[in-house]
Amino acid sequence: MTDLPELELYTFWRSSATFRVRVALNLKQMSATEKVINIDAGEQRSAAFLRINPLGGLPTLVEAGHPPITQSLAILEFLEETRPLPALLPADRHGRARVRSLCGMLASDTHPLITPRVRKYLTTEGGFDDAAWRRWQTQWFGVGLTAVEERLACEPQTGLFCHGDTVGMADICLASLVAVMRVFKIEVPNTPTIARILASCSALDAFAHAEPGRQVGAPG
Amino acid sequence: MTDLPELELYTFWRSSATFRVRVALNLKQMSATEKVINIDAGEQRSAAFLRINPLGGLPTLVEAGHPPITQSLAILEFLEETRPLPALLPADRHGRARVRSLCGMLASDTHPLITPRVRKYLTTEGGFDDAAWRRWQTQWFGVGLTAVEERLACEPQTGLFCHGDTVGMADICLASLVAVMRVFKIEVPNTPTIARILASCSALDAFAHAEPGRQVGAPG
Repeated sequence: MTDLPELELYTFWRSSATFRVRVALNLKQMSATEKVINIDAGEQRSAAFLRINPLGGLPTLVEAGHPPITQSLAILEFLEETRPLPALLPADRHGRARVRSLCGMLASDTHPLITPRVRKYLTTEGGFDDAAWRRWQTQWFGVGLTAVEERLACEPQTGLFCHGDTVGMADICLASLVAVMRVFKIEVPNTPTIARILASCSALDAFAHAEPGRQVGAPG
Repeated sequence: MTDLPELELYTFWRSSATFRVRVALNLKQMSATEKVINIDAGEQRSAAFLRINPLGGLPTLVEAGHPPITQSLAILEFLEETRPLPALLPADRHGRARVRSLCGMLASDTHPLITPRVRKYLTTEGGFDDAAWRRWQTQWFGVGLTAVEERLACEPQTGLFCHGDTVGMADICLASLVAVMRVFKIEVPNTPTIARILASCSALDAFAHAEPGRQVGAPG
């Protein structure tokens, strides 16, 4: 085993993208000192945090002596290259492509549409009331999860987890999205394969310990 | 050199995500047979294409004898693993993380907000008129490119291209976003570093040949 780097992770309890990184760290038995940035209090715009990340985004991972790393998928790939085992991507390039494609459907095509900055725009500039925002959330969670369910249900590579019988990056992205849906009490019907895989994930300490409700700052 | 696989790429002239794959194929001197899916005519919902990609998304890459690959960033990583040289990612894990982070800011945090399916929702369910849609586009192109400009302008790893003096994955994502902005005649002010890097990209045949206006099906 190589020496593990000293890591700091800037987090917020409810952040879906931060959840992904927490799970990956747990699975790889790596640790990072968590630094809470309270988004509800606007701390991501504080001078102190903007010195770490000029863009004010979470999560941000800092390895001692190196520039901060932003974007959760970039951080997951970085952790995979830093500590390859247990692997979160399959060994073959076609399997890796499938897992990264599933990650993209969740973390790129779905999650960015329901972030706080989008909510802020739609409910001010966009004229959305609370009901319209909820329809928007329901629409995009629904489109994303329904499409992922369709793939997982019919593609032969699906196993106990999204890809085979080993937990990996696609499971992390899937669980992170659903964790946020639970915060907002939104459900997508007719997703039995996703429900089955999520149950397998929840049984793992790495996921259970990363749940939003169990983080520092979460409502009681 | 290993034998190159036989590839088919499902495309549409204006698709920003498809532009990324075209440039990567060009840079790696790989070829793919292009199959045009006319989004304006709804062909992505045709039975024939849904047999290739049940989700109706572009681009989709098919290597003969293997399942289709969707999501442009997953395809870029796949091409990088299939034909490693010329490399589109740096050799060191910190450099790779920086490039993937820039890609995420462009392809995950920005582009998904201005896709046709979002336009359709906002201009029907969301009550947006054409002016409101244009303000929405301008907002998210602006936020994304301004943030990327801020990084590129102040981070020492920036060179002739986004990362050093060699063209790579971040340049591809940057050029793809700006190519679509040009289609919609949207400009983001105060982005001189981006303008400089894009000029370097445009000077390369790999980018010039991938421009939306030069593809089959583009308006004359």
